[in-house]
Amino acid sequence: MLTSKNKVIIYAQNSFSGENAKTGVGFIKYGSSETVGIVDRKLAGKKAHEIISFLPPVPIYDSIESAIKARPDADTLLIGIAPPGGKFPVEWLPDIKFAIKSKLNIVNGLHDFLSDIEEINTLALKEKIFIWDARKIDHKFPTASAKLLDYPIEVILTVGTDAAIGKMTVALELTKTAKSRDLNAKFIATGQTGMMISGSGIPIDAIIGDFMAGAIEQEIVKASTEGYKMAFVEGQGSILHPAWSGVTLALFHGSLPHKLILCHKAGRQYLKNTKIKINSLSQFIKVYEAVALPVRSAKVVGICLNTVDLNEIETMNAIKIVEDETGLPACDPVKYSGEKLLNACLKQL
Amino acid sequence: MLTSKNKVIIYAQNSFSGENAKTGVGFIKYGSSETVGIVDRKLAGKKAHEIISFLPPVPIYDSIESAIKARPDADTLLIGIAPPGGKFPVEWLPDIKFAIKSKLNIVNGLHDFLSDIEEINTLALKEKIFIWDARKIDHKFPTASAKLLDYPIEVILTVGTDAAIGKMTVALELTKTAKSRDLNAKFIATGQTGMMISGSGIPIDAIIGDFMAGAIEQEIVKASTEGYKMAFVEGQGSILHPAWSGVTLALFHGSLPHKLILCHKAGRQYLKNTKIKINSLSQFIKVYEAVALPVRSAKVVGICLNTVDLNEIETMNAIKIVEDETGLPACDPVKYSGEKLLNACLKQL
Repeated sequence: MLTSKNKVIIYAQNSFSGENAKTGVGFIKYGSSETVGIVDRKLAGKKAHEIISFLPPVPIYDSIESAIKARPDADTLLIGIAPPGGKFPVEWLPDIKFAIKSKLNIVNGLHDFLSDIEEINTLALKEKIFIWDARKIDHKFPTASAKLLDYPIEVILTVGTDAAIGKMTVALELTKTAKSRDLNAKFIATGQTGMMISGSGIPIDAIIGDFMAGAIEQEIVKASTEGYKMAFVEGQGSILHPAWSGVTLALFHGSLPHKLILCHKAGRQYLKNTKIKINSLSQFIKVYEAVALPVRSAKVVGICLNTVDLNEIETMNAIKIVEDETGLPACDPVKYSGEKLLNACLKQL
Repeated sequence: MLTSKNKVIIYAQNSFSGENAKTGVGFIKYGSSETVGIVDRKLAGKKAHEIISFLPPVPIYDSIESAIKARPDADTLLIGIAPPGGKFPVEWLPDIKFAIKSKLNIVNGLHDFLSDIEEINTLALKEKIFIWDARKIDHKFPTASAKLLDYPIEVILTVGTDAAIGKMTVALELTKTAKSRDLNAKFIATGQTGMMISGSGIPIDAIIGDFMAGAIEQEIVKASTEGYKMAFVEGQGSILHPAWSGVTLALFHGSLPHKLILCHKAGRQYLKNTKIKINSLSQFIKVYEAVALPVRSAKVVGICLNTVDLNEIETMNAIKIVEDETGLPACDPVKYSGEKLLNACLKQL
């Protein structure tokens, strides 16, 4: 587990500017450890905020070697890229081995586990560093039964039109805002990045089908037993994306939310890696509300609009269009704050 | 894999009359091997058709020992019970060991794998029998991308109000009826029982979340490549059951069906192991059609009504009520035939 004492280098070779770098980007913005460098030879010499405006000015290096030379206090390499399917590209192996030989710990959120590769494991033992495969699970989960009906905890789930558009981010922002108002709220991570940031959670998409919903149900029961009164659950995928909709629905029915925040990326027209068109936000609101369990009819109460690619005037316009279409409050909590969407979550239905 | 030469004893200790015995019941009715005995001490002395009317008169014994004594030609013990969560009860272990020592092969569809238990494995090697853990998967799958849009195969998926109500059965009956009309159709198994019966398929609920839809997509692409023009896909779970809805939706979006057959068990009021009420069939039709991918708007075209607990007059009444409520053709293909529902599947929408 990473703490505030770790100094992290993000590995995002050739990819830091792309959507697959969301693990790295999320960790830089929200992680409890300081990120001291990024590895991406295509962007070497630039700084993170020149690529993604809301990030701090973390320097980008062409190689792990250059990053270590500049920041000899770095102690951890975090794989900051998540290719579709979560496979580990073999061409990264020499870099990983170099990092271990340089005594960096390795944090990996892919479906392929580095600790399963004998050569890597042997090297890690020799160099006395740790390998944390966030998606590796060594225990079994129960099946879900809607037992959260009996627990006094308000659950807000972030759902989306698509993957990689800000569902984790808005859950983190809402938790932060709720805590600033002294609400007893917990962020519930359901993906590798959220787990790396918060130090707990479950990698729901790495759990076998029958136990996904039971795993998240158990996680929220635990939060309630610990005394939390509100849970902001990091959503996954999209109810209409063929690759991930099963995970999305398991998370929905397992977490039994009272309210939903719908996340969308302004300007996105097609679902990631498909030819499936995103027709309208109303379409998604209708589908999400239609599949809510009848024992707790969750409603979409607000829209989180990811406007990272828009300037300020475009952002204001985009938010207004969404509010007019849906009749719901909309905001980009990364550019502004979580206040407006938290108010929507707290409003009595 | 089982063939027509195997002679099978079904292990359903204390449970053959219950819903958890669906693996055993399905195998007796549709399996390619002959079932020569059933083990259930509570029902010992009776025959299968006295418990479940549509089964042949397979004798029930109080123990594996008695079954073998009566049928020394038996060569395989098939675990015929699937407890919720698919866990293997430790109290069965002595019986399994006895079976292996008696030189029976073991077929197991639970999530817990018998071949992972060292003692069992050693014994199996010594006695030269095989252990088939149907849910054990040793290869990875791609993620889904709706690529079935490009393949000329008509896909019919059986969906349900609940689990364990006949989704596999109707897919098998429809395939049989389609073949009798010389249609080039394939049954696609997605669960352990269907796999044991058909000798192929994927155990979708044993696959990790991100790859469930991709696994079924790949299976149907394969069927199309083999020349099949129709696929009847065995559905799983229920879109409104918290434990399994993720699997249900992954299967729906991965298989990209043109048409759906909705299965329901007459008289069932609550979802299995929950306090969630089944309000109406129209409710489920609405939800299933709402979550269909917009690129292929699947419609429910017929209702398969499981009337196993009803007499003939009650059955006719139940079918009429369902047809009046939904405006769709309804039938129990186990009591009658698959003709009516196949006609519904073939009708141009």
